[in-house]
Amino acid sequence: MRVLRTVLAGSLAMLLSAPAAEAQEGLPLEERYREAAERIVAAARADEGGWAKLEYLCDRIGHRLSGSGGLEQAVAWAAEQMRADGLENVRLQPVKVPHWVRGQESTEMLEPVRKPLAMLALGGSVGTPPEGLTASVVAVQSFDELEALGWEKVEGRIVLYDVPWQGYGRTVVYRGRGASAAAKLGAVAVLLRSVASYSLNTPHTGAMNYAEDAPKIPAAALSVEDAAWMGRLARAGVEVKVRLKMEAQMLPDADSANVIGEIVGREKPEEVVVIGGHIDSWDVGQGAHDDGAGAVVSMQALALLKRLGLRPRRTLRVVLWTNEENGLRGGAAYRDQVKESGELERHVAAIEADSGGEPPAGFGLGLPALRDKPGEEAAKQRALGLLRQIGRLLEGIQAGDIRDGGGGADIGPIMREGVPGLGLRTAGERYFHWHHSNADTLDKVNPEDIQKQVAAMAVMAYVLADMPGRLVERDLEPRMNTD
Amino acid sequence: MRVLRTVLAGSLAMLLSAPAAEAQEGLPLEERYREAAERIVAAARADEGGWAKLEYLCDRIGHRLSGSGGLEQAVAWAAEQMRADGLENVRLQPVKVPHWVRGQESTEMLEPVRKPLAMLALGGSVGTPPEGLTASVVAVQSFDELEALGWEKVEGRIVLYDVPWQGYGRTVVYRGRGASAAAKLGAVAVLLRSVASYSLNTPHTGAMNYAEDAPKIPAAALSVEDAAWMGRLARAGVEVKVRLKMEAQMLPDADSANVIGEIVGREKPEEVVVIGGHIDSWDVGQGAHDDGAGAVVSMQALALLKRLGLRPRRTLRVVLWTNEENGLRGGAAYRDQVKESGELERHVAAIEADSGGEPPAGFGLGLPALRDKPGEEAAKQRALGLLRQIGRLLEGIQAGDIRDGGGGADIGPIMREGVPGLGLRTAGERYFHWHHSNADTLDKVNPEDIQKQVAAMAVMAYVLADMPGRLVERDLEPRMNTD
Repeated sequence: MRVLRTVLAGSLAMLLSAPAAEAQEGLPLEERYREAAERIVAAARADEGGWAKLEYLCDRIGHRLSGSGGLEQAVAWAAEQMRADGLENVRLQPVKVPHWVRGQESTEMLEPVRKPLAMLALGGSVGTPPEGLTASVVAVQSFDELEALGWEKVEGRIVLYDVPWQGYGRTVVYRGRGASAAAKLGAVAVLLRSVASYSLNTPHTGAMNYAEDAPKIPAAALSVEDAAWMGRLARAGVEVKVRLKMEAQMLPDADSANVIGEIVGREKPEEVVVIGGHIDSWDVGQGAHDDGAGAVVSMQALALLKRLGLRPRRTLRVVLWTNEENGLRGGAAYRDQVKESGELERHVAAIEADSGGEPPAGFGLGLPALRDKPGEEAAKQRALGLLRQIGRLLEGIQAGDIRDGGGGADIGPIMREGVPGLGLRTAGERYFHWHHSNADTLDKVNPEDIQKQVAAMAVMAYVLADMPGRLVERDLEPRMNTD
Repeated sequence: MRVLRTVLAGSLAMLLSAPAAEAQEGLPLEERYREAAERIVAAARADEGGWAKLEYLCDRIGHRLSGSGGLEQAVAWAAEQMRADGLENVRLQPVKVPHWVRGQESTEMLEPVRKPLAMLALGGSVGTPPEGLTASVVAVQSFDELEALGWEKVEGRIVLYDVPWQGYGRTVVYRGRGASAAAKLGAVAVLLRSVASYSLNTPHTGAMNYAEDAPKIPAAALSVEDAAWMGRLARAGVEVKVRLKMEAQMLPDADSANVIGEIVGREKPEEVVVIGGHIDSWDVGQGAHDDGAGAVVSMQALALLKRLGLRPRRTLRVVLWTNEENGLRGGAAYRDQVKESGELERHVAAIEADSGGEPPAGFGLGLPALRDKPGEEAAKQRALGLLRQIGRLLEGIQAGDIRDGGGGADIGPIMREGVPGLGLRTAGERYFHWHHSNADTLDKVNPEDIQKQVAAMAVMAYVLADMPGRLVERDLEPRMNTD
């Protein structure tokens, strides 16, 4: 880790004096690549292969949580697809993944009225005793409110986090660490208002984590409707009693794999632009938006370039990461492997598509390894300038908006090691209606949006892999600057 | 019936020569009632009683299908509320209602993958044998497509009506008569894509009917997602096999009641403006929009007028009809009772609130008894003109838009007998997201919209009950025209 930091600092010093990529051969990128981009976009917009893949993945394989048969089926299918599309060096990178299973589960309100509630255990939660767990409910709308209640009012009770939607980042913290915060005050279980921007009585699951210094108690999401109802009753002073039954448990790690395919670069095959989405999903719905769309778009972008005979200067690699949802083991394993092989420094960019299958809007750039380092701003502005040149090639499909800030969970590990990361941005209007729920299904995706995403991903990946210089210059491998 | 038609024809002849109501005392209604309307709207917008009622009905009583304990609880509670609000002549009108029960139910796809499906039996459906019913699925998207398949391809199979939303009226026909249409071709059950304008894997129930000349086969709604999935598989030629288990059955009729309260008119107590919503709901969700909102708004409109000491010339009556959802027995019983008592002809208008708790938009007028009769257009235009004068009093809350066409299911029987009917119109933006599903819950209602609905209903009802002439003049009771 220390060694790497030194190397990065060195590369930063170089960066400031590095010639601008667009100056290397004179032409701005949007002129240099206009013809190629037009070919790509036209082909993508006529392509039905992406949709056919998404349809198969959703309708014939379905959801695919780590450890499930669905995921292993999806992994094998994806490798097959890549081979059939003529990608090169198609391979599986074995990854051990957590194997959490939901089992049977139910939540029932016993008082003041008897009513079954819509629920989904949170991923990673322990189960209840087989006979279930019955307790009265105390409702809170923030951690502060929980702390204010204290041990006396929480002990032996079920804590309901009835937290209204405040955007994903601010709301999801209750899913992540709510159980342990409540367990530290003696709670026996937690229920969560589903983290969702709109609800039709649909519970949303997702990962939770246990702190090491708290008892592990069961945690489940209720639908927004049922949680809000329970919260209203509890706040009105009505005694609410609930029975929770969950068979959830963690089994020994299971075998899975990242699925990898390439178009080997024609001039600098050792340099890599990696693109991808995650092949796993939660164990509900079809994982159409999260992240069937991103996985398929990434596969199809390379399939399309291959079909068009567009072999860029550098190697284009698609990776369908496994276990994004509840472990990030795929992204970590990929980082470990490319670090070990020395390939990490030759990754010129990574692009993740994990924002659902809505219309593409553009890309966001993240450079976390440069954070607070001298030269950060200059490197970022230079990279954003190059990306905006490429973005202009995507204006015809409204997918050229370049923003500061972006990346993805699976590419996070390599981004933190210095690889410039991009996230494919989408309209994102309804993503959190569906996210992690039984409503994340193919009918929510528009085939045309998948075509546009393929176009955006293929153009961006192709140009980054083909342009004379690197998006962020480094001096780790001097031969790279002799283009 | 023949007698009534003659009487109506007579009244129509009179109508054309009747003096316009607004001419009787000179002032247009919006001037005559501006002060009263302002008082009503201001009081309604500060009133929390309507919301408190809706909260209790939804959160503490919950759904209330005919024959259920919930409905009988709601009936008793509503009468209590009316008494507590000081309404006069509070009473229950006993009504025998159908008693359909859902029981346990499940649908599972067996092939090509094994997966439990989100479902709700349709109201009125028969059940399956206890061991369930297993068959392969044939998917259609219209009755024409079903007919084209014929006996050979339908016999012994489950027909899936995978009909995309085309607006309520055009889509709901498959719910109503889909079972018998399929049964006539030998189908053993039908599944229906839920009739909904937006879905998050939420099935929507609702009434279905059996034709007399077809076997009674089980009928259930799937979520839009599961139906669309099954439809895609079937259309792709994949063999889809499903097991359906339903305990649904019709029990002997149960006791229920319309709940009635009044403000007795100060000058013409025998003339009546009746307003109301229905107190029953489907056996899912909380019946917040359908029709908790309408029932509560109607009760509260009278409670508010009572509190303000606004006693109109004619009697204002609120009726919370029972059994709107699966029988319309409440509306029919009310018609029978007022016909028998001779009160029918003294109903000057009926207003139904059964379009959900979204912001009020205005009122729609229906005069079905005048349909295709001479004088229809003149009577309608005169009534619409009067209503538009009243509508101007509601412009401040954007609830004054008067349209031709309206009414309600519960007032349908008296409208067909000659009573002018109005429906309280709402924005109606998301009503069919929630309708007849577990998503029809209090969290979907905005307290301010209930206040506005109370304002709109109270102003309209008060003016109709107080204005010098009748909305539609009749000569059935000559003394009515001597104001």
